[in-house]
Amino acid sequence: MSANRTEPRPCTNGTPELGVRHAVIDGALEGVASEVEIRFARYGRADAPCIVVMGGISASRHVGDWWAAHVGPGKALDTRYYCVLGFDYLSVLPAGWSGISPHDQAAALNALLDALAIERAHALVGASYGGAVALAFTERYPERLDSALVLSMAARPSPMASALRALQRDLLRLGDDLGFQAEAVAMARALAITTYRSDAEFSRRFAGSPERQGGCWRLPVEGYLRAQGERFARRFDADAYRVLSESLDLHQVDPHRLHTALHLLAVDQDRLVPRADIQALARATGASFTCLASDYGHDAFLKESAAIGDWLAACLQQDLRMRRPALSA
Amino acid sequence: MSANRTEPRPCTNGTPELGVRHAVIDGALEGVASEVEIRFARYGRADAPCIVVMGGISASRHVGDWWAAHVGPGKALDTRYYCVLGFDYLSVLPAGWSGISPHDQAAALNALLDALAIERAHALVGASYGGAVALAFTERYPERLDSALVLSMAARPSPMASALRALQRDLLRLGDDLGFQAEAVAMARALAITTYRSDAEFSRRFAGSPERQGGCWRLPVEGYLRAQGERFARRFDADAYRVLSESLDLHQVDPHRLHTALHLLAVDQDRLVPRADIQALARATGASFTCLASDYGHDAFLKESAAIGDWLAACLQQDLRMRRPALSA
Repeated sequence: MSANRTEPRPCTNGTPELGVRHAVIDGALEGVASEVEIRFARYGRADAPCIVVMGGISASRHVGDWWAAHVGPGKALDTRYYCVLGFDYLSVLPAGWSGISPHDQAAALNALLDALAIERAHALVGASYGGAVALAFTERYPERLDSALVLSMAARPSPMASALRALQRDLLRLGDDLGFQAEAVAMARALAITTYRSDAEFSRRFAGSPERQGGCWRLPVEGYLRAQGERFARRFDADAYRVLSESLDLHQVDPHRLHTALHLLAVDQDRLVPRADIQALARATGASFTCLASDYGHDAFLKESAAIGDWLAACLQQDLRMRRPALSA
Repeated sequence: MSANRTEPRPCTNGTPELGVRHAVIDGALEGVASEVEIRFARYGRADAPCIVVMGGISASRHVGDWWAAHVGPGKALDTRYYCVLGFDYLSVLPAGWSGISPHDQAAALNALLDALAIERAHALVGASYGGAVALAFTERYPERLDSALVLSMAARPSPMASALRALQRDLLRLGDDLGFQAEAVAMARALAITTYRSDAEFSRRFAGSPERQGGCWRLPVEGYLRAQGERFARRFDADAYRVLSESLDLHQVDPHRLHTALHLLAVDQDRLVPRADIQALARATGASFTCLASDYGHDAFLKESAAIGDWLAACLQQDLRMRRPALSA
């Protein structure tokens, strides 16, 4: 156990240190250098071993908000012992860039670690899009992390998932062109939600028959999707949505270039990132592989708190055990 | 073997008798009577035992066109022995109707059988939407058919499939409201196609990386979906699409009211009609159940000609065997 652990100073979850750094990074797609703004949040003591936590495309640096079950004193990402670092994804295209890839987010994180004088992260934890960023970071900056914990992400997107995202982006473009941006974001989000959940969950929740409403037939599931879509449209920018959706389709790492300790978690019912693709990545890298059964599908990382918490704790524990001989030497 | 079979008169596939009948039917949803036009095609001798063949929402009465592998002399639906009957689905809302349900299509078929003086169909063969119509007909007019062969359809739609169709209809409505009908139909069809095929098929066909095209990143799968969508938009009417899409979500039969000989075929990789739902229908009705493994998913009924042909032939053969004692008595 590292020295930092002997005098824990509990921190209150929900009152992170918030900050902004600026850095110049080379865009991975065209190699065009641009200054970017990186907004971060830190939970726990700044000098404790750092765990970087990254979620889906709509997640924010406020990790304690969207992953409250796992970040805080006594939780799997224990802020008495670790400093949990979150950051907002780059989502505004710098001039001269055609897109923002997960490798660009990794470059931003690398610059952020520089700016915060964190030589090496204890772990990167990334779920969904955050998993793509974690894998890109692991490929490009292996010397800057001890291990990566990746949930519900493979070495590249599946063409079916890409197809469904491309349709969402078509909608966003059409919304821009024809002036129905908010509706386009809501519809795109509704489509995304169908990929985040499973058949079984929808069957359980929306079993009712269609009902007539003002001359139309409405299905139970329609009201839910509309409400979720509209809620998202109120808080999320259409351009950021398009950039981050495309970024997922620009994700690609070479498994044979991943040499860091890697833990992979798949969900059997995930419609977006097939379990088989994650399993293939595990085989190619020698990563630990865990498969969870959950009707929440791709969203399991947000919903299956008990199982996800156990997995996070077990992975971190296993890494500590493997590193202990080196630490005591 | 029935008397019709002793003197086969081969018919040429592709030159059906075409006809139109008119009938007054009571709409299943509001009970409002309306006159409808029913366009049909007959392949084979009109006095041979009749097999009604019904496909997906975009299928037509020209069964010999879209199911050429199975309809004709020497094929599973052998026009030397059977008269194969196809009809165009009702797709224009009669005044006072809020929708057209599969039970309405069944009522139209019932009226068509009256008009053609066909007392009883030897079999109904329905795939996808046609399966819903076959089940509705079996429920309402059990005295008018000997058996039903249903491919890739369950007792009701799964809420996930309904969600994805509701999004397609939202698109069509928006296209109407904002004047981009053709693009809306193309996008809705592209979305539908993702539900008709499987992850595995897309992964095999569209494995390439994104490429820059005029400042945008384009995925291999996008070109395919766009071309398919646009092709469909040129030939298919937006209103008919909306009516038939909704009709699928109005589909519902009570398994305990299905007493006719029933054969069900499911496809393991079907994203639209889960195998489990078809299996549940088989259990509730005592139907024969066959599960096919095919990366074509829901579209397997159009693509897996060998397996589907074998299944059709086996089902028809089995029904003949079961009926023979009665026929010779």
